[in-house]
Amino acid sequence: MKVLVLGGDGFCGWPTSLHLSDLGNEVTIIDNLSRRNIDIELEVDSLTPIRPIGERIRVWKEVSGREINFINLDLAHEYDRLVEILLAQRPDAVVHFAEQRAAPYSMRSAKTKRYTVDNNVSGTHNLLAAIVATGLDISVVHLGTMGVYGYGWSGSAPIPEGYLTVKVPTPDGDIEREILHPANAGSVYHMTKTLDQLMFKFYAQNDGLRITDLHQGIVWGTQTPQTERDARLINRFDYDGDYGTVLNRFLMQAAIGHPLTVHGTGGQTRAFIHIRDTARCIEIALANPPKSGDQVSVFNQVTETYRVRELAELISEMTGVEVANLPNPRREAAENDLNVSRDRFLALGLSPTTLSEGLLTEARDIAKKYADRADLSKIVARSVWRSGMETAADLMH
Amino acid sequence: MKVLVLGGDGFCGWPTSLHLSDLGNEVTIIDNLSRRNIDIELEVDSLTPIRPIGERIRVWKEVSGREINFINLDLAHEYDRLVEILLAQRPDAVVHFAEQRAAPYSMRSAKTKRYTVDNNVSGTHNLLAAIVATGLDISVVHLGTMGVYGYGWSGSAPIPEGYLTVKVPTPDGDIEREILHPANAGSVYHMTKTLDQLMFKFYAQNDGLRITDLHQGIVWGTQTPQTERDARLINRFDYDGDYGTVLNRFLMQAAIGHPLTVHGTGGQTRAFIHIRDTARCIEIALANPPKSGDQVSVFNQVTETYRVRELAELISEMTGVEVANLPNPRREAAENDLNVSRDRFLALGLSPTTLSEGLLTEARDIAKKYADRADLSKIVARSVWRSGMETAADLMH
Repeated sequence: MKVLVLGGDGFCGWPTSLHLSDLGNEVTIIDNLSRRNIDIELEVDSLTPIRPIGERIRVWKEVSGREINFINLDLAHEYDRLVEILLAQRPDAVVHFAEQRAAPYSMRSAKTKRYTVDNNVSGTHNLLAAIVATGLDISVVHLGTMGVYGYGWSGSAPIPEGYLTVKVPTPDGDIEREILHPANAGSVYHMTKTLDQLMFKFYAQNDGLRITDLHQGIVWGTQTPQTERDARLINRFDYDGDYGTVLNRFLMQAAIGHPLTVHGTGGQTRAFIHIRDTARCIEIALANPPKSGDQVSVFNQVTETYRVRELAELISEMTGVEVANLPNPRREAAENDLNVSRDRFLALGLSPTTLSEGLLTEARDIAKKYADRADLSKIVARSVWRSGMETAADLMH
Repeated sequence: MKVLVLGGDGFCGWPTSLHLSDLGNEVTIIDNLSRRNIDIELEVDSLTPIRPIGERIRVWKEVSGREINFINLDLAHEYDRLVEILLAQRPDAVVHFAEQRAAPYSMRSAKTKRYTVDNNVSGTHNLLAAIVATGLDISVVHLGTMGVYGYGWSGSAPIPEGYLTVKVPTPDGDIEREILHPANAGSVYHMTKTLDQLMFKFYAQNDGLRITDLHQGIVWGTQTPQTERDARLINRFDYDGDYGTVLNRFLMQAAIGHPLTVHGTGGQTRAFIHIRDTARCIEIALANPPKSGDQVSVFNQVTETYRVRELAELISEMTGVEVANLPNPRREAAENDLNVSRDRFLALGLSPTTLSEGLLTEARDIAKKYADRADLSKIVARSVWRSGMETAADLMH
């Protein structure tokens, strides 16, 4: 299969590109290297020493014998070149990771809010408009997020895979209707993913585009069987307050002996998936596209749920580092349950890596091993979610 | 009240600006004159001879003694200037009409799809981000559309004013939840309005912005008591296949003796409102803003519903011109009912102008009077909604 991976230099995009290449697919990475530029802007760096994309691709050729192409293109602002590439390559599928993906970064300032909306909305819409314009039959697999739903909306019912049947009261009695699960974005980043959903719905209905939207949980883990094959293929590990996930920040704090900082009660339940399983899910999604005329195919790309305090306790037990509680900067319920349907990927053969199995490897082989590369000042979130808000950073002085 | 009218040179914006000025408000129009540029691009013109914005404002000063300011600004691409203007003017409210508003235009080509998304999404988001950045307490009144809902979704229940209470099945029995009425966009233009809704929801929730979203029907009528005060204040009348509404096209066809072209059975029911009532609704919305922390306030800005064939018959009877049936280029049901809640504006004192009262004036004082200015080649829609589609124009040869 010929696949374009948009955002193929990023945290999910790079290991997915290698995984798809390893399976024998013809992979072209399209990326404007924006994630590396944001590192420069934030004065942070991946804990793991990632190599330039050209070197990554050369090393992959050395170890696997397989060719990956790379095109430096800004999806949101180079529409005409995108059309040329689609017409020249005629790919079977496009995997779309090319969105600004950090909620805290999207809330830092008017500039980052506007960048996130422009990059994510224009990029996604350019892709959809370009596929229609070329007339090619290209399926799209997009990385969305569980976060489009907010939390606690559907009571004891599990969060469905995209669609929900509700009863609508009418003068003639209740009627049943299937709706997209209502959106409830908690950041500008999440908001852009709720906009993506409506663009996908329109282009699937109007133009018969074949679109899969993966509502992914928080990705953890760094290495995959492919990235482990050479030190120069290593994947990113972010631990800063913007791009570092709660789990990576805990691992990093533990590695340097800093208390594990839990915001609020730590009662927020979050959904997780290992990066190996992300790559495998993309493979499964590519092999099972919807037909033209079908509605957007939605999968929940999640393998486990944990409360934040349970995660902290898990890592605390593993490392002996204590837990510290801080105020929560986000507008969200202090405690929430999270019950997620995850039947579709399991039915298609996904066999997940669990946190209880994989966390020790992360602590030892990544966080501890590269701890001397860490910038200790970067491990607490500083984004101001709304005006006048106390930030966790304020309370650290 | 100090009010900025974004898009104040357009079909709804101009008469609304005059209406608000006439009431004693301090009005500043912000517009990049894009609607006039699109006339040039489409090689069409308003049937009525509209004057340059500077002349319009000078004449208004002559006849009313009132000052309207004008700033030429591209809302989607001049964020920093927008912030400067908000800080300098400190308006009480912003009325936001500054969106590309024609569904057929939004479907002409990849270029117009992308322009519509960029202009509408970036413009709306820039406004919201700028208000948050300035910290000013500015209420927003936005012109949305009834078209975000699609048709026929809620059975015999009327389309609510924004929100719908549904029953969600759970293992513990049904629970009631209030949702935004599900969106079902029929064009890229409508899609952008569904995206607007989610941006408004986020900024109302996260930042406490006070936002009113008016879900407007098809606007008819040309003149208001203010635009009638001098020929140089006249409002636009569009009759081309992109910007002309079904009603204006019928009026124009009748004026030149061309058969009234009904697409499909004409069984599509549409919602209408006179331009005078649009201006009055904006006045009412400005006087009744939500409080900070409230959800987005949604009004259905609609006074009547008609089937397209009923409209054609009304005009046919009035003018003696016959009706011709053509295939329908849009993906929509051939026949639909449309039952719209319109309690909120009526409760706040709106007293509507009906089609049966006002249509003769339009036929006589606008369509007939200016018929010699019409370009006869422009009265049939040419946008290709999807690839391979027969257009009405193809069938006219």
